[in-house]
Amino acid sequence: MNVTVRGRTQHFRTVTFDRTQNAVRLIEQRLLPHEFKIVATKNFRETAAAISDMIVRGAGAIGATAAYGLAQGALAFRGNDLKKFSAHVATVYQVLKNARPTAVDLVNAMNDVRAAMLNGATVADQQSLALATAEEFAREDVRHCEAIGRHGAKLIRNGMKILTHCNAGWLAFVDIGSATAPLYAAQAQEKKFHVFCDETRPRSQGATLTAWELAQQKISHQIIADNAAGHLMQRGEIDMVIVGSDRTLGRTGEVANKIGTYTKAVLAARHKIPFYVAIPLSTIDWKLKRGFDIPIEERHESEVLGAWGMVGNTKLNRRAYVRVANPTSGARNPGFDVTPAELIAGIITPAGIFKPQDLWKRRGELGFGGQ
Amino acid sequence: MNVTVRGRTQHFRTVTFDRTQNAVRLIEQRLLPHEFKIVATKNFRETAAAISDMIVRGAGAIGATAAYGLAQGALAFRGNDLKKFSAHVATVYQVLKNARPTAVDLVNAMNDVRAAMLNGATVADQQSLALATAEEFAREDVRHCEAIGRHGAKLIRNGMKILTHCNAGWLAFVDIGSATAPLYAAQAQEKKFHVFCDETRPRSQGATLTAWELAQQKISHQIIADNAAGHLMQRGEIDMVIVGSDRTLGRTGEVANKIGTYTKAVLAARHKIPFYVAIPLSTIDWKLKRGFDIPIEERHESEVLGAWGMVGNTKLNRRAYVRVANPTSGARNPGFDVTPAELIAGIITPAGIFKPQDLWKRRGELGFGGQ
Repeated sequence: MNVTVRGRTQHFRTVTFDRTQNAVRLIEQRLLPHEFKIVATKNFRETAAAISDMIVRGAGAIGATAAYGLAQGALAFRGNDLKKFSAHVATVYQVLKNARPTAVDLVNAMNDVRAAMLNGATVADQQSLALATAEEFAREDVRHCEAIGRHGAKLIRNGMKILTHCNAGWLAFVDIGSATAPLYAAQAQEKKFHVFCDETRPRSQGATLTAWELAQQKISHQIIADNAAGHLMQRGEIDMVIVGSDRTLGRTGEVANKIGTYTKAVLAARHKIPFYVAIPLSTIDWKLKRGFDIPIEERHESEVLGAWGMVGNTKLNRRAYVRVANPTSGARNPGFDVTPAELIAGIITPAGIFKPQDLWKRRGELGFGGQ
Repeated sequence: MNVTVRGRTQHFRTVTFDRTQNAVRLIEQRLLPHEFKIVATKNFRETAAAISDMIVRGAGAIGATAAYGLAQGALAFRGNDLKKFSAHVATVYQVLKNARPTAVDLVNAMNDVRAAMLNGATVADQQSLALATAEEFAREDVRHCEAIGRHGAKLIRNGMKILTHCNAGWLAFVDIGSATAPLYAAQAQEKKFHVFCDETRPRSQGATLTAWELAQQKISHQIIADNAAGHLMQRGEIDMVIVGSDRTLGRTGEVANKIGTYTKAVLAARHKIPFYVAIPLSTIDWKLKRGFDIPIEERHESEVLGAWGMVGNTKLNRRAYVRVANPTSGARNPGFDVTPAELIAGIITPAGIFKPQDLWKRRGELGFGGQ
């Protein structure tokens, strides 16, 4: 999507591959929204570190980074010995996998690459298949987000006010994003609308990443405290909600997403405001039978007890953590919550918009061939 | 309530009057929770500044401060000329009133003091009546909070987990508080319970003031992001909600309180968790017919776009504002919201616990004699 750096607007993707340097180029997301910087990882170990240090985050973006990282590692191999090459690739795979042990997309993306490599008879063949498959993974991520945007944009009418929570934007994917895709597509169709970004405490991804994206893309928006959405709904100031999802249960239509998503869904239901969830197909979990069984990560209490931001004037800007809360108090910090299907108007997927309760019976359309 | 300063636990009130110095003594609330300090205002203009600069906040605390400020101003008058004295008192009244033009309790408290002064024949008589009435206002504030505690504590059973939002604690009153009164009373009865304090963005009064109060009082508690309450309710981890109120409509039972209160009431209703509002009688508005007509203050966007906290290590602590949000984005910042009666299990008052729908028909018990 567009980024304006020193007055010049350019197109960027979250993750790209530089063939000449054999480097993965990433937007350094930890500096956003205060600084825009591209980092290039010189080898697969640096790529793994970029994942574990959260330079890159978001399911699609991590998947593409890992796929490129595996190709990068494979391409760095010198020689023709296929056995040594395979051992090397196994190491690369393991190092990247360990970078974020719970990320399903990371493993799926690398498995695609490794499966394709088996079709190559030589090291050189396998190397070029690795890169081609990684590139195809990234292209497909973009195509899926485009398709989400195409379907979702139909829901957006002129003059609408739309609430979003957290960041399921292009920074979480290779480009375009999931929850933001309908917004960007509607903008391309010259529809006029306004977006409220939930701050999304404790990590404030709405106030930082989503607001930055929308500002770069010149979409009308305002940040609100997570406490304010109920009041705005009550006063008729919100017409629709669109969020992303980390995991959607194919059997029940339940949606796990950033903490606070469930609250917004409950509020939306009370005010009869449609609540949509935009997802790539890869985040559908066809196995789990109950949302209650989704493990909810308890994150560090320091996130709740303080905030990161820029301190000082424009001459002496620096990023700092401030302790907001009473210093002798602790915190609970569940990272995610689960929204039941009954509160969700529709799941916007690359294959169309589905009632959450229909995912299982229409699983064929969603590319699921298993039981 | 109790405050431990340098290892020594003492009893403090939010507002007291020092007769020997003719000074109002206030807890400097802007420094909390990071520093505990008492400031003494030397004259009524300093007292007015303490109100407008928010050294003191909260309906009861502001009322008592204004009442004491009026007495302080009256006591500073030298001479016997009753006409000059009255003109002086009128100035004092106006200066204090202008300190917070929208605070109803401030005006009500000063009107009490002025009405009592009219019973004095001399300047000296009126001066001592002013102080006696201000003292009685403060004592009554404490008695009312004690009564709220007495009634509310009956709702608290051993092992309960209680959610509260914002700060309607002793720092907002002369002592004890409204929403916190049942907690302190239940603690005195040796009941065991746990409190979740909503952070209460954007000004974080839950994470700062309420958490500080509960920590000083050694009540088991944890701070949570405003986004987390829905998830905790869903998992059965919250048994009751108690909040305060800035204004409660006597005719409808609607409650105006800090932004986010309505959201918690909607969530509580969904989970069949009782939602209580604790209030002093002075905050009941017997005139207004619709909660929709309560003006909702739109506060400065900087509150949403950043946070105040302590930066640096323990050797070089200083309080600073950090800009969290994207620097090119703006914010909406409604300060309050309105919760309808249907979501409220009961209004805890000094006169007992009332169904919100019953306030009007039982208005005689609530001390309302008008139409």
